[in-house]
Amino acid sequence: MRQSQLFGKTLRDDPKDEVSANARLLERGGFVYKSMAGVYEYLPLGFRVLERINAVIREEMNKIGGQEALFAALQPKERWEKSGRWKVLGEEVMYQFKDHSGRDLGLASTHEEVMAEAAARSIRSYKDLPLFIYQIQTKFRDELRAKSGLMRGREFLMKDLYSFHADAADLERFYWKSADRAYRAVFKRCGLDVYLTEASGGAFTKEFTHEYQVLSDAGEDMIFYCTNAKCRYAQNREIATLEEGGRCPKCDAGKIAIGKSIEVGNIFRLGAKYAEAMGLSYADQAGAKKPVIMGSYGIGPGRVMATIVETHRDSRGIVWPEATAPYAAHLIVIGNQESKIRNQGEKLYDRLHRAGISILYDDRADKTAGEKFADADLIGIPWRLVVSEKTLAKKGVEMKRRGEAAGRIVSVADCLKRFSKKPSKRRGTF
Amino acid sequence: MRQSQLFGKTLRDDPKDEVSANARLLERGGFVYKSMAGVYEYLPLGFRVLERINAVIREEMNKIGGQEALFAALQPKERWEKSGRWKVLGEEVMYQFKDHSGRDLGLASTHEEVMAEAAARSIRSYKDLPLFIYQIQTKFRDELRAKSGLMRGREFLMKDLYSFHADAADLERFYWKSADRAYRAVFKRCGLDVYLTEASGGAFTKEFTHEYQVLSDAGEDMIFYCTNAKCRYAQNREIATLEEGGRCPKCDAGKIAIGKSIEVGNIFRLGAKYAEAMGLSYADQAGAKKPVIMGSYGIGPGRVMATIVETHRDSRGIVWPEATAPYAAHLIVIGNQESKIRNQGEKLYDRLHRAGISILYDDRADKTAGEKFADADLIGIPWRLVVSEKTLAKKGVEMKRRGEAAGRIVSVADCLKRFSKKPSKRRGTF
Repeated sequence: MRQSQLFGKTLRDDPKDEVSANARLLERGGFVYKSMAGVYEYLPLGFRVLERINAVIREEMNKIGGQEALFAALQPKERWEKSGRWKVLGEEVMYQFKDHSGRDLGLASTHEEVMAEAAARSIRSYKDLPLFIYQIQTKFRDELRAKSGLMRGREFLMKDLYSFHADAADLERFYWKSADRAYRAVFKRCGLDVYLTEASGGAFTKEFTHEYQVLSDAGEDMIFYCTNAKCRYAQNREIATLEEGGRCPKCDAGKIAIGKSIEVGNIFRLGAKYAEAMGLSYADQAGAKKPVIMGSYGIGPGRVMATIVETHRDSRGIVWPEATAPYAAHLIVIGNQESKIRNQGEKLYDRLHRAGISILYDDRADKTAGEKFADADLIGIPWRLVVSEKTLAKKGVEMKRRGEAAGRIVSVADCLKRFSKKPSKRRGTF
Repeated sequence: MRQSQLFGKTLRDDPKDEVSANARLLERGGFVYKSMAGVYEYLPLGFRVLERINAVIREEMNKIGGQEALFAALQPKERWEKSGRWKVLGEEVMYQFKDHSGRDLGLASTHEEVMAEAAARSIRSYKDLPLFIYQIQTKFRDELRAKSGLMRGREFLMKDLYSFHADAADLERFYWKSADRAYRAVFKRCGLDVYLTEASGGAFTKEFTHEYQVLSDAGEDMIFYCTNAKCRYAQNREIATLEEGGRCPKCDAGKIAIGKSIEVGNIFRLGAKYAEAMGLSYADQAGAKKPVIMGSYGIGPGRVMATIVETHRDSRGIVWPEATAPYAAHLIVIGNQESKIRNQGEKLYDRLHRAGISILYDDRADKTAGEKFADADLIGIPWRLVVSEKTLAKKGVEMKRRGEAAGRIVSVADCLKRFSKKPSKRRGTF
């Protein structure tokens, strides 16, 4: 992509009405901007990051047997009255209104009712279980105070997976499989260091649940956590029995610390609650009718994006992990008023492009080297490639990893080789 | 995907409350189901078709320079008062309501105002033009009578592209480029035979616009069209000057016919209307401030899916074009109670899978051959592969194209070879 044509410009100054680092940097970098309180528009750079996060989530959900679907936001009142949530969610966060014919409608802030209803169309007997359905879909929640940038929005993408089981033991097996395999893999690939944290289920369930928490001063939660890296036991302060400075009761080795944290995901054992409310049952081996046992599993891709920014940045801007970067490399041409240098830049862009490497190409003629470097640091693409008079003389290109102090000049062939490697093997090559 | 585990079952009978063929077949095939009037839930098969259509659209939009973004559905009243559409759309199709703090909100049924506002953040001078932004995003429209299945919904995906130009001549160039190149390519790849049809701009513009119409008795529109295949001039009846049975004034050769048709896309010249309302201007070469000239270009992926079903079906079910099929092939094992046959099926599934061919694998042990074949015809995947005692004896697999009367037994190697070819070269290989 030619930066001269990119929709979304970098801003020199912080937006006036944003306090959180994620919103400030993402807006200054041209990734998103605030449309109204709690509602963000994703410009092409932000959309690319979102899609990369979604791709990671999809891969990991598919690996554990998840089937992707897409359910509607518009909800009839009757469905939510069955579960008793029309009133309670309506008072808190659910947008509810009447259509032109006077019918009561709501916008889904979550999909347990819908999914139980949908599953009832497909599940007849124990042979149809277990079943794992997910979607990446837009949720609406009328948050009283939408602050913290993209971390708490009124309209946001959510990956919500729902699992359906014959009994609690089967739910338990999948619950831990999703927790220890899929969820850990998603966050690891996104560069997030998560604590699996015991927490209360809120309005969803009276059972114990788990949250994925990332330590950060930008967080709205507080967790007690074991500082032993092999243990990492954690509890949300809301339900905590741990004590700061105390010995961890789980590993009996680490010390307990307390810190602010961001919740990037959560998993719930729902039991039979929604199945019973929505009439979702199955016939067991003996033909007896039993309620289906459910679990639900959420990740907010926009909140993951915001959390990456909160935890991967420096004074100059964002430092994207490779798996979530909008482009693999940022190619910058310095002195492209001169045709010799400009041609070299165009040639390299073309070559990288043809090699299938995603490139943001700073071809802007009206920016100084300083402005281009500052923009590159702000946008935070993992690799910066520079073509200039200096590199032309040495017949190479300057490569620098975002966050490194200095780059080095390598041959174009070596540069290409670097990017043809698998992303997972990329680290520490130079 | 193993059909025994697929979420979404085929139904033997038509759903009671659907009259349109697209909704009946898509619901019976387990692609979608109706959540409430005008609102459909996409099950995994339906979601896969939708994603394939979206992929075609993305490719063609990117080819003409489109940059993908993602804008919100939630809208502040103030934005739409600037264009004067809060009242007029509110009376017709826009869902409008108050949030918990009493603020007036709406759900976007279209995004001209938002896009003009967003573009104003990025466009300063003539150097920033032209610009082409699109999204594939959920729209809400409170249709008075939502009928025709997925063709006219209250919540639906829409690809909307907006173009921004320095003057009307530049808009004109892009308008025809999108019309003749991108739009034609999308519909051709989706197997739709479209007529580019002159039409009225409705609430959007007073200028002349164009619709893409597909002849079908399921359509809600009527078009006059030239029967000369080289001309294909068409007008929507609403504004038509053509006469049935008359000579086409454009090619002076074809005869004019009239027919019911489905609108699958539309393109609009918006002129300066939204730019002026939203304060979107640029500085020209002389530094003079001028309004930006806009165009908008829509395709509804769900409506494309419904139109494909209306125009690609027979008495047994859907006949998907290859580019939009949920899977490349439907592998059916007959007699998989016998381990020899079952093993052969599993081996072939594994081999096709590893070759990167997307397969729906009917491994169900409790269905008869007749039931499996009927389901395959209903679901409509382009190729049917059968493993049975007969094919085992001949050391091959039976291949049959959906719609063909009989299949033929080929070797597994030949079968694999068939699918390793590029989709565009697939037709007529056997």
